[in-house]
Amino acid sequence: MSAFSRFTPLAASLPSTVPFVGPEAIERQRGRPVLARIGANESGFGPAPSVLTAMAEAAHGIWKYNDPENYDLKQALAVHLGIAAQNLAIGEGIDSLLGQIVRLVIDPGAAVVTSFGAYPTFNFHVAGHGGRLVTVPYAGDREDLDGLLEMVRREDAPLVYFANPDNPMGSWWDAESVIAFARALPETCLLVLDEAYGETAPFGAIPPLDAFINMPNVIRTRTFSKAYGLAGARVGYAISTPGTAQAFDKIRNHFGMNRMATAGAIAALKDKDYLAQVLAQISASRDRISTIVGQNGLVALPSATNFVAIDCGRDATYARAIVDRLMADHGIFIRMPGVAPLNRCIRISTGPESDMVLLEEALPAVLKALATL
Amino acid sequence: MSAFSRFTPLAASLPSTVPFVGPEAIERQRGRPVLARIGANESGFGPAPSVLTAMAEAAHGIWKYNDPENYDLKQALAVHLGIAAQNLAIGEGIDSLLGQIVRLVIDPGAAVVTSFGAYPTFNFHVAGHGGRLVTVPYAGDREDLDGLLEMVRREDAPLVYFANPDNPMGSWWDAESVIAFARALPETCLLVLDEAYGETAPFGAIPPLDAFINMPNVIRTRTFSKAYGLAGARVGYAISTPGTAQAFDKIRNHFGMNRMATAGAIAALKDKDYLAQVLAQISASRDRISTIVGQNGLVALPSATNFVAIDCGRDATYARAIVDRLMADHGIFIRMPGVAPLNRCIRISTGPESDMVLLEEALPAVLKALATL
Repeated sequence: MSAFSRFTPLAASLPSTVPFVGPEAIERQRGRPVLARIGANESGFGPAPSVLTAMAEAAHGIWKYNDPENYDLKQALAVHLGIAAQNLAIGEGIDSLLGQIVRLVIDPGAAVVTSFGAYPTFNFHVAGHGGRLVTVPYAGDREDLDGLLEMVRREDAPLVYFANPDNPMGSWWDAESVIAFARALPETCLLVLDEAYGETAPFGAIPPLDAFINMPNVIRTRTFSKAYGLAGARVGYAISTPGTAQAFDKIRNHFGMNRMATAGAIAALKDKDYLAQVLAQISASRDRISTIVGQNGLVALPSATNFVAIDCGRDATYARAIVDRLMADHGIFIRMPGVAPLNRCIRISTGPESDMVLLEEALPAVLKALATL
Repeated sequence: MSAFSRFTPLAASLPSTVPFVGPEAIERQRGRPVLARIGANESGFGPAPSVLTAMAEAAHGIWKYNDPENYDLKQALAVHLGIAAQNLAIGEGIDSLLGQIVRLVIDPGAAVVTSFGAYPTFNFHVAGHGGRLVTVPYAGDREDLDGLLEMVRREDAPLVYFANPDNPMGSWWDAESVIAFARALPETCLLVLDEAYGETAPFGAIPPLDAFINMPNVIRTRTFSKAYGLAGARVGYAISTPGTAQAFDKIRNHFGMNRMATAGAIAALKDKDYLAQVLAQISASRDRISTIVGQNGLVALPSATNFVAIDCGRDATYARAIVDRLMADHGIFIRMPGVAPLNRCIRISTGPESDMVLLEEALPAVLKALATL
């Protein structure tokens, strides 16, 4: 497979890889359909009907490029959040924003601090820009704020990633701890505070909007992919000071947003009743998952997200076998953390009752099959 | 406006800019709506009804991330083009693919060859990765293939950009000349052959698919934004050898595609009748524009695209005044080339008859108003 001979040394050194294998690829590999799609922390509860209506209306304007300034969406978000539009940057999902942040901050060799086992796509972007990933172990299945801070100082790192609530463990810190962590960081270190799961977090976990709004070294990232049920639309946003937010304009794909997606996101912000309804469904589904796995002798960890990490009580091989058998024998797509000690767990996304029924039926069969091996 | 203090030196040196001001921003600035949107080379003829249907059906799955392997779209494109899926990379419009190509090839200071006045978004990406832009003047309102080749050799440039048909002039080369140019390039220079307007080109202008399919240093870029009428959807693709195509996997935003957009693109490929109908409309609209401007003493240049460059016979100030007055006085949004000598021209996109009627009414009034100044 001949490739162009003169890619940059960095590009040539990178693997052609995907941070996550998609469920569609698993379907193709295994030759069987996914019956319960509860592995990618999508929202099977879907977007609001009002969002579908707004996207359908916007479809007739799909021949037009989206406004590169994302003016309407920024205005809607500003009102929704009670901040200024200048505090916002819009991107094609948080993944895209993370790539831009890494590119803005990291020259080859620069240290980037994250937790060992945290978001692989962030790590993908760090590798892609030649950053040197420095990891801190989770402590008690939570990201270790003191450890992250110490590592930033030791490495004089210009960038640190911290998700609250956390993925893949579903754990969280209270707002006071997050604020103390951010304020303790040197001003020369940019904090990416990933709040992809902010909507599903318990009261008191998410710092108020004004906590960091004057701190140029804090960027909070949020998304319409989780609670709003729009993962396939690709709308994320970043909150920071105007100066830091404007830095995205230096490098972003200005005409990169999908026009229907933007209309859908604006509609989603307006439909607060639907969001409340989905949050209740997510909460109930977390309880349902906990009950199901508890009945099978597994331990659901507390969750502030739209998924539940489940301690299977043994090693990664066992957890991996559960993940594999659920798909191979029952068409149930779930995922699991990638590294020890987190990978004693499996991770199941919340979803509609039809998915929970399939899980309830399949899990005991899988565990029984594994017990006889 | 305080910003984070430790962006990379390159990032800190970049302006926060947009390659093109969108018509929505012009509407906000001027406080009046665009009545004829014929400036961004979008397709006012819109996508096929079958595409709208496919996107509407896909909307109900919008809670799911799109397949990161873009398997179905690649298969559909492979069949459509008569090549292998491995020859393809998918991206959020050609703009996104261009950014990735520059990133894969350009280290700071590396020379990048393009034509003086060619696609600004490509130049934006080159600047964003610290490349050194080296430009070759247009010759006879066409990109100068001999000049580009000579400059590549002189600079030992690893990257050259060439659009066929060309934007902003609408000119083109015959396939034989393009093939000869590509084959004459050193293997250490990657050719981006931008065929965004390939569908609207005359017979004999577009090299056959097998012309470069074994050349690792050629990437052809194509889009659903122009003839297919899906600019707001953000679907582009690159055609190259499997090895070069796979390089995109090293750095792309794997989950960056919109799920409805992907479904729409697949449907668009199937609806060949609609494409033929739109191509006829575009051709007729080009003639209509030529007639309108000719009646007003301006000269339409030959066009292989969905727009017409029009020589206004005077300088850039005059052309700019026409662009400004058409919008300010009549709500007609058009654009113009950015540099001399191309900027003696204005650029009008093809569009439905209702837009042409507005143009037909407005242009003489604008020229008359300018004559009395």
